[in-house]
Amino acid sequence: MAEYVVARNIYSEEKFNEEHEKIYRQRKTLISHVKDYFRCDRRRLRSAALSLLPVISWLKIYRVKEWLFSDIVSGVSTGLVAVLQGLAYCLLASLPPWYGLFSAFFPVIIYFFLGTSRHISVGPFPVLCLMIGSVVTRIVPDEGPPMNITGFEGLTRDDQRVLVASSVSFLAGIMQLAMGVFQVGFVVMYLSDTLVSGFTTAAAIHILVSQLKFVLGLTVPGISGPLALIYTLEIIFNKITSTNVCDVVISLVIMVVVFIVKELNDRYKAKLPVPIPIEVIMTVIACGVSYGFDFKTKYGIDIVGMIPKGYEAPVAPNLEIFQETAVEAFPMAIVGFAVAFSVAKVYSVKHDYTIDGNQELIAFGVSNIFGSSFKSFAASTALSRSAVQESTGGKTQIAGLLSTIIVMVVTVAIGFLLEPLPKSVLGAVVIVNLKGMLMQVREVPYLWRRDKPDCVVWIGTCVASVLLGLDLGLAAGLGIELISVVLRTQFPRCSVLANIKGTDIYKDKKDYLDTFEPEGVKIFRIPAPLFFANIEFFRNKLVESLGFNPLRVLRKRNKALRVIRRMLMRGQLKYTPKGYVNMSCEPYLEDKDLEGEDSAEELDWPTDLKELPIRVDWSTELPVNMNVPRVDLHSLVLDFAAVSFLDVSALKGLKTTLKELIRIEVEVYIVACDPYILDKLHSCGFFNDEITPSIFFLTLHDAMLNILEHHPEAIQRRPHFDKVVTTVTAHHPNNAVRSRDRNGMEPETRF
Amino acid sequence: MAEYVVARNIYSEEKFNEEHEKIYRQRKTLISHVKDYFRCDRRRLRSAALSLLPVISWLKIYRVKEWLFSDIVSGVSTGLVAVLQGLAYCLLASLPPWYGLFSAFFPVIIYFFLGTSRHISVGPFPVLCLMIGSVVTRIVPDEGPPMNITGFEGLTRDDQRVLVASSVSFLAGIMQLAMGVFQVGFVVMYLSDTLVSGFTTAAAIHILVSQLKFVLGLTVPGISGPLALIYTLEIIFNKITSTNVCDVVISLVIMVVVFIVKELNDRYKAKLPVPIPIEVIMTVIACGVSYGFDFKTKYGIDIVGMIPKGYEAPVAPNLEIFQETAVEAFPMAIVGFAVAFSVAKVYSVKHDYTIDGNQELIAFGVSNIFGSSFKSFAASTALSRSAVQESTGGKTQIAGLLSTIIVMVVTVAIGFLLEPLPKSVLGAVVIVNLKGMLMQVREVPYLWRRDKPDCVVWIGTCVASVLLGLDLGLAAGLGIELISVVLRTQFPRCSVLANIKGTDIYKDKKDYLDTFEPEGVKIFRIPAPLFFANIEFFRNKLVESLGFNPLRVLRKRNKALRVIRRMLMRGQLKYTPKGYVNMSCEPYLEDKDLEGEDSAEELDWPTDLKELPIRVDWSTELPVNMNVPRVDLHSLVLDFAAVSFLDVSALKGLKTTLKELIRIEVEVYIVACDPYILDKLHSCGFFNDEITPSIFFLTLHDAMLNILEHHPEAIQRRPHFDKVVTTVTAHHPNNAVRSRDRNGMEPETRF
Repeated sequence: MAEYVVARNIYSEEKFNEEHEKIYRQRKTLISHVKDYFRCDRRRLRSAALSLLPVISWLKIYRVKEWLFSDIVSGVSTGLVAVLQGLAYCLLASLPPWYGLFSAFFPVIIYFFLGTSRHISVGPFPVLCLMIGSVVTRIVPDEGPPMNITGFEGLTRDDQRVLVASSVSFLAGIMQLAMGVFQVGFVVMYLSDTLVSGFTTAAAIHILVSQLKFVLGLTVPGISGPLALIYTLEIIFNKITSTNVCDVVISLVIMVVVFIVKELNDRYKAKLPVPIPIEVIMTVIACGVSYGFDFKTKYGIDIVGMIPKGYEAPVAPNLEIFQETAVEAFPMAIVGFAVAFSVAKVYSVKHDYTIDGNQELIAFGVSNIFGSSFKSFAASTALSRSAVQESTGGKTQIAGLLSTIIVMVVTVAIGFLLEPLPKSVLGAVVIVNLKGMLMQVREVPYLWRRDKPDCVVWIGTCVASVLLGLDLGLAAGLGIELISVVLRTQFPRCSVLANIKGTDIYKDKKDYLDTFEPEGVKIFRIPAPLFFANIEFFRNKLVESLGFNPLRVLRKRNKALRVIRRMLMRGQLKYTPKGYVNMSCEPYLEDKDLEGEDSAEELDWPTDLKELPIRVDWSTELPVNMNVPRVDLHSLVLDFAAVSFLDVSALKGLKTTLKELIRIEVEVYIVACDPYILDKLHSCGFFNDEITPSIFFLTLHDAMLNILEHHPEAIQRRPHFDKVVTTVTAHHPNNAVRSRDRNGMEPETRF
Repeated sequence: MAEYVVARNIYSEEKFNEEHEKIYRQRKTLISHVKDYFRCDRRRLRSAALSLLPVISWLKIYRVKEWLFSDIVSGVSTGLVAVLQGLAYCLLASLPPWYGLFSAFFPVIIYFFLGTSRHISVGPFPVLCLMIGSVVTRIVPDEGPPMNITGFEGLTRDDQRVLVASSVSFLAGIMQLAMGVFQVGFVVMYLSDTLVSGFTTAAAIHILVSQLKFVLGLTVPGISGPLALIYTLEIIFNKITSTNVCDVVISLVIMVVVFIVKELNDRYKAKLPVPIPIEVIMTVIACGVSYGFDFKTKYGIDIVGMIPKGYEAPVAPNLEIFQETAVEAFPMAIVGFAVAFSVAKVYSVKHDYTIDGNQELIAFGVSNIFGSSFKSFAASTALSRSAVQESTGGKTQIAGLLSTIIVMVVTVAIGFLLEPLPKSVLGAVVIVNLKGMLMQVREVPYLWRRDKPDCVVWIGTCVASVLLGLDLGLAAGLGIELISVVLRTQFPRCSVLANIKGTDIYKDKKDYLDTFEPEGVKIFRIPAPLFFANIEFFRNKLVESLGFNPLRVLRKRNKALRVIRRMLMRGQLKYTPKGYVNMSCEPYLEDKDLEGEDSAEELDWPTDLKELPIRVDWSTELPVNMNVPRVDLHSLVLDFAAVSFLDVSALKGLKTTLKELIRIEVEVYIVACDPYILDKLHSCGFFNDEITPSIFFLTLHDAMLNILEHHPEAIQRRPHFDKVVTTVTAHHPNNAVRSRDRNGMEPETRF
């Protein structure tokens, strides 16, 4: 069994750097970083061009023989799903269904050229559609006049809505593009898994409620804003008696069948070559049945209705709508990208290629800008559709491109076949697909057991998103999440450490029995970064564990000094070789004359002992009858190992604390400080005559040995102490190691 | 010179806890905390009662002889300033001036009983007044009809405004009271010094602009909402030709005189018994001159005008206004309290008594609820007025109580004397008092040098508050501040450490020359907590410094294994005692048949070697022509010393990383882990068959010694290595220490 044996000098940071030469590393300045970033040579240009058009890289390695067939199969399957989802998700966006076909067409084409993911299926994403829907119904409500916007004149309600949807998509696209160009894609990291899970669960609830009207065959106006969900449920509840039974029956049948087949698909995944496209099958059947039995006229069922053939002329976005919707477009840009990126990441890991966050932002930005010019709305990816594209064998975005052909065929040729499709079928399909999102609720008890703050973030985000709406809810969730980070470090569990006898190890003295704490030495561990939110807490905890407030002690001492000086002058006090002797018999009372002079600044000065004939020993009885708290501490060690950063508030607070302690003659040592923090302290003018860099030591044990060397009395008073002493008296290493047995000689003999 | 000599066992966390008995500490559960909090006995009841009425504690120790005279002097001076400021700050709130007198009266009385600070002067605070003003002008604009609120019928415009102001103050009071009762006063810690400085600077700019109209004698409608400042300046600029010259002259004279005398006050602070109350003097003079020369009719100057005698009947707050202003009342509650608390803290430190944040919240909450019922508006403290109260000798809130008598005298008796006072005089007084707040701009270059993120917070808060208005600006500032905390840890400077020769110290290997890195061992330091925002960054950095991606290696290995197995079955591969021999001449090509089987899950499994006749040695040439990246690493040490917390995302990410590494046969060690994090890992089910608690070691050197014991080859290849070896071979400590000289024996001899 090996042992841990070390013999070396005691290192303060200064001493260590004297002995061990440090390599001078030129740190890049901000400007040189920027210069580097904009540096331009042929190689960089080429790689920039390549990274801007990822299609070049992967088309070069495209294996036609092996991949093309898979891509075709995948493209066709994805295309069918895309058509169905395009129609269905349009209902979420409160737009006529065929615009969803545009959304499954235009953005995909651009993404083919610019995207770095080879497996995601770009197009409508239900959460995003719902967010667009809430903007649309706010600006062009179902009842009452639309918002007063120039450009709305002469347009039908649906046209106005399409204009709103495409404008807000355009704006979201610009935002994504800007984020991509400025390389700030890292902001999506703030959307932690927990936050996204809570948010999408809330979105699923919103989607569920928004589809209820189609499933029940009711007319419910779209409501937006906080508490919209509650109001919508209220309206549905009030109208529940006018439910269209036929709609309910169709929906239930569709839901049950699709649900069961999906479960079977899941269970026999390994055995099935391709999952059964049950949604597409059911839709086709429903279309046929609806047409055959003329559901619309016979049962008053709401159907998809006329789907115009072909594409519409491009439209310019409306600047007034930009102004109105800027606040809502931002969360759309973020959510759309974040979801697509996280799905893309899963596939990129699975198939072993890299995706580039900033390039993805550019790809989605341009896709949305281009798409919305042709009246499509903001695109992202739907998890279910991407799963189809990948699981049916899609290898590259060729599959995506092929899926657009299916969509195009429907748009330009056979769209009329879908006209008799009941909207309740679409609603039912949407609802069945919510299962996965709603099941995320199961994470809550799991999170609660693991990590309470994370659980609070989940619940907070979910509740806020349900009640306030998705955009405000996302903002609230982000706020809660950021606060949770701060809260984790706001009340650090500071502890007083003590040496584990016979080792160089220091642990919380409350946790272990065989610990040793030299007299007059305190080791205080700060287990968190120090910043504005916890610097006061740290100071309070420190004062608490010290048992006295340094500033108070300092002030009391200064006041006592002034009294002593005055009494000396008046002859009430004399000094003898034994110390001060009080000549007056009256006890000292608060001196009224002194009151006025007590300016706060003066009281904070270091105790000035120059004018006095002999030094006042604060640890003995004072000659005057004043109550100055006794300080039994001569050294304080602050363990900075876990202090990963300091901000300006912490810097100030730390400096004040150190100053106060040093002025009442407590030596302070800081150990295990991060080199970058030390550099920062130097550059910030942290050090002065009182606080010098010599207080920094490499390890706790180094500092402790240094203290014990200067304060041998700290251990002399404890005759039963044995092992640590060996480490400080070890001028002769052999001797030190030999005395390692537990019943070594008494420490007194060695000092 | 003492040395650092240690000889002990190598400690993994497990081994350490075997040898050193841990004291079992029962941690309080959340429920017992709550129970404790609501526990009720006589002592607690008494102290609760006392802490709810702090007046009892300090009145008991009131020294009538010594303190009463000071309090009277202070009370009178403060009262005069309070009257003047009450009138002036009312202009900020867009209310008739005399309501400011109410605000300097009612809240002070309640604070006398409930407040814990003895030195602050409670009453109107300019920033708060301005925030109220922006609500008031939003709901009851200068031009056009007021908002449609029941309760406004039959009221004059001013009455409506007073109702709005008192309702919003009432609401802010309720919020403060609630925060106090629920003991969440710690939230003000989020308002860091930097944030408050940026915010108050922006407030000063708003105040300056809002007073311009009085100083210039213009009629400018109050504008609220984002960019209000710009629009106001635009209007003022357009109307600049109709400036009232007389107003400008009066203002300039007042400003110059007050400014100079204040500077003198400051300079001769030590010599003056009481600062010269120049504002009061100038106001009295201005009143007299205005009355004597009849400024109002002769020069068309806007004067204070009729001040009704006495108090008005109490008014109930309006619930509709509550709804309208809830979002704005919250920042008021926060800002009002935060400013008062920070001022109170300064004086409590100076005069050595404690203040209680939550009790202060209760005090201000009740003060505002009570005050606003009598048509006063939200109270906090003005720095300048508190300075007057303290510097003129105020010892307790008796001074505050006396100041209310002065205010009351003005209200009920001599208010009419102030009627001829020009509003421009009040405006000038307000502007002069902004100096301190505006001078905070000087912090910017200071902050930029010290800490860039803090500087960004300052500028961000200030710009947002100027442009968006104070409430939105505060929210934006808070957001920026919270993000700055996350940003500080989002891109941690991870580093690869190496041993400093001959010591147990590990430093960044790029920083020092005389370092030693055993072969196949990597030490990776994470200098920040791990959480959702940086776990991906950490994983990327780790992969970068490892030089290979563990998951990719694992998959390649599994694929290669499958090929080997298949070739063995087909007889293309034979195994000989020397290893596998490839019998087929064709090079290996991507096997199409294998493609389909590559389910992602399977590829992630640990490489299964059981079925193979002999183990595949991944570090040598493979028998098949496949490219599996070579891994030269056998051990990875993660330095967790600075990891102060882990969230669920980090837990997952860390677990995945460890799993991947362990599966490609890299041993992972985690060292210097915080005991609380270790506890958490245990309770979260972090450990399984692959990841065991035995990977945790106390220090880096312990882990390194353990590695070197199991991998002696790691140092054998380096004959020039001397000192570290002493520490691992030290089965005989004497021997180890004896060989400390730099030219010790060659390591080979000892293994």
